[in-house]
Amino acid sequence: MTLPTSWTSPPPLPDDRFRNEALERQAVLTKPPGSLGRLEEVAVELAGQQGSGRPSVDQVHIAIFAGDHGVCAEGISAFPQEVTGQMIANFAHGGAAISVMARHLDATLEVINLGTVTPVPDLQGVNQLQIAPGTANLAVEPAMTPHQVSAALQAGDDVAERAAAAGAQLFIGGDMGIGNTTTAAALACALLDASASDLAGPGTGLDAQGVSHKAEVIGRALTRHGDNRDPLAVLGSLGGLEIAALTGAILGCAARRIPVLVDGFIVSVAALVAVRQQPVARQWLHFSHRSGEPGHNRVLAAMEAQPLLDLGMRLGEGSGAAVALPLLRSACALHNDMASFAGAGVSNKEA
Amino acid sequence: MTLPTSWTSPPPLPDDRFRNEALERQAVLTKPPGSLGRLEEVAVELAGQQGSGRPSVDQVHIAIFAGDHGVCAEGISAFPQEVTGQMIANFAHGGAAISVMARHLDATLEVINLGTVTPVPDLQGVNQLQIAPGTANLAVEPAMTPHQVSAALQAGDDVAERAAAAGAQLFIGGDMGIGNTTTAAALACALLDASASDLAGPGTGLDAQGVSHKAEVIGRALTRHGDNRDPLAVLGSLGGLEIAALTGAILGCAARRIPVLVDGFIVSVAALVAVRQQPVARQWLHFSHRSGEPGHNRVLAAMEAQPLLDLGMRLGEGSGAAVALPLLRSACALHNDMASFAGAGVSNKEA
Repeated sequence: MTLPTSWTSPPPLPDDRFRNEALERQAVLTKPPGSLGRLEEVAVELAGQQGSGRPSVDQVHIAIFAGDHGVCAEGISAFPQEVTGQMIANFAHGGAAISVMARHLDATLEVINLGTVTPVPDLQGVNQLQIAPGTANLAVEPAMTPHQVSAALQAGDDVAERAAAAGAQLFIGGDMGIGNTTTAAALACALLDASASDLAGPGTGLDAQGVSHKAEVIGRALTRHGDNRDPLAVLGSLGGLEIAALTGAILGCAARRIPVLVDGFIVSVAALVAVRQQPVARQWLHFSHRSGEPGHNRVLAAMEAQPLLDLGMRLGEGSGAAVALPLLRSACALHNDMASFAGAGVSNKEA
Repeated sequence: MTLPTSWTSPPPLPDDRFRNEALERQAVLTKPPGSLGRLEEVAVELAGQQGSGRPSVDQVHIAIFAGDHGVCAEGISAFPQEVTGQMIANFAHGGAAISVMARHLDATLEVINLGTVTPVPDLQGVNQLQIAPGTANLAVEPAMTPHQVSAALQAGDDVAERAAAAGAQLFIGGDMGIGNTTTAAALACALLDASASDLAGPGTGLDAQGVSHKAEVIGRALTRHGDNRDPLAVLGSLGGLEIAALTGAILGCAARRIPVLVDGFIVSVAALVAVRQQPVARQWLHFSHRSGEPGHNRVLAAMEAQPLLDLGMRLGEGSGAAVALPLLRSACALHNDMASFAGAGVSNKEA
């Protein structure tokens, strides 16, 4: 089993010199100290990550990772499984939320189909990998073979390589996979030693009975899985293809010094796997939004993450990260372009 | 005393037909119902306000209202009073946070100087009204004469008229005035029957002792003012020039069917005055962010407002609203450009 270097080796650290210079700059801009709140932190972190006194997130690469989930056999989703493939076509045709946002933000968008139950026809902008026709049912057997896990991680790392080659200043990963809140909740339970009822949520629209059933399915998966918390073992046992690829993309971006703007519940779970494997990867992550999916809070807390937005979004596809991107752009514009007290002839705070 | 029609007559209502059509459209877009969270509400409200099936906030007019506050004589600010005038120059020269954001957002920006202690020289983009050399000290006497109140309200209404003439699809008002969190807190206390200690905060950076002194100053003003809650009387008694103008601009925009994106503490207090005078004006307001200034929560609650952002910003100048604007733009893009289930051939939720 071959694994990407970004999985086996720690990523570099952000550059403290640029981080500290950015902190000093924030202190002399024409505003009360700290009055731009979280935007100051964002600019400072980006400066360190990009090794630049003038951070920028104009060039953004968005990749949507799609895959099907065998656990759909347990009836845990409000939508039929063929929607995964249908939405891949919708991404390619420009009608999905993330397609609209990528255009709106002038970001590049690619779609990677890791594997659907029904093969998807060739579509421009869709990379058809079809590692497997979806995962196996995690409630009854391991979701992925070791080969499938390594192929999915490599697919993510390949995306990071393409993003780096294209000069991306920031990466956004998104997910599409009917049933993937069940998979993600199972992964988070295994990594955080949480109970299924803590992390099972309504996903795309289950009612209370549906959520209860989903928790029972996750509970069976966790009993089968046992207490192994090794990230590679957890991914193989519980899945899914697109989540493993997202983990690979996050580690691949950190390895290549590309900051990542993490989307909602699914991508946060992929980030959690990444950080459990390579703790330094946490220093390359920005968190975009707190999802309406209730389990997200627990996952965010495990990474000491305070997302920028809390708008009740729960769509996936990287849409929450895309909606948050302008906050990072505003943070950069303010950091780079505001005048200093001395430069503008404005009196500073009375000492 | 002549008052603008927008002060004396209720504004129109948003158009329920377009609001309802927008609700119906949101239900058929390719996403689980409600999964765009607050962005769906924003698009629906804008559709009703703009009377359009395709709401847009591309054309945005930003106006910064500046004025000085006599209460600075009580030593209630961390910054010296000359900063008001210096910042007016900084706005005009493009170095202030709101100047940077206006360029970044491709919004028009004008500055209205209602009156500073030291006159400000002529500057391009600054409308010098100089209604008074700042307000009187609200702790010891009425802050403004009836003539000054009506002139400030009219100045705001004039800005709304210019915004309408320029085809603005959204209005953002900002404030600049050293000492104005003291004035705003006093106004909010008078309107909400709250105590000074509930609403006094650190402003641009007071320590605990400074906040305590500020509350004492506000308490003296409230004792002098008494229990009159008439919006016009409250404005005259407590000030300030730029807050009255913001109130006039908000009512002027509502009267002209221009939605308003409300900034932080100061502008929210101006909005509260507006809503107390004309309750229907509330239906034209979007709330951008929860300020780091603690009194903001009480003011927002009084208008049942849930701001979009909570980033610990506390700069004023309309900067929080400017930072939130891209959320409204994203809401419009998603609403206008996403495919429907039928159009994209995507299966809807299983009934």
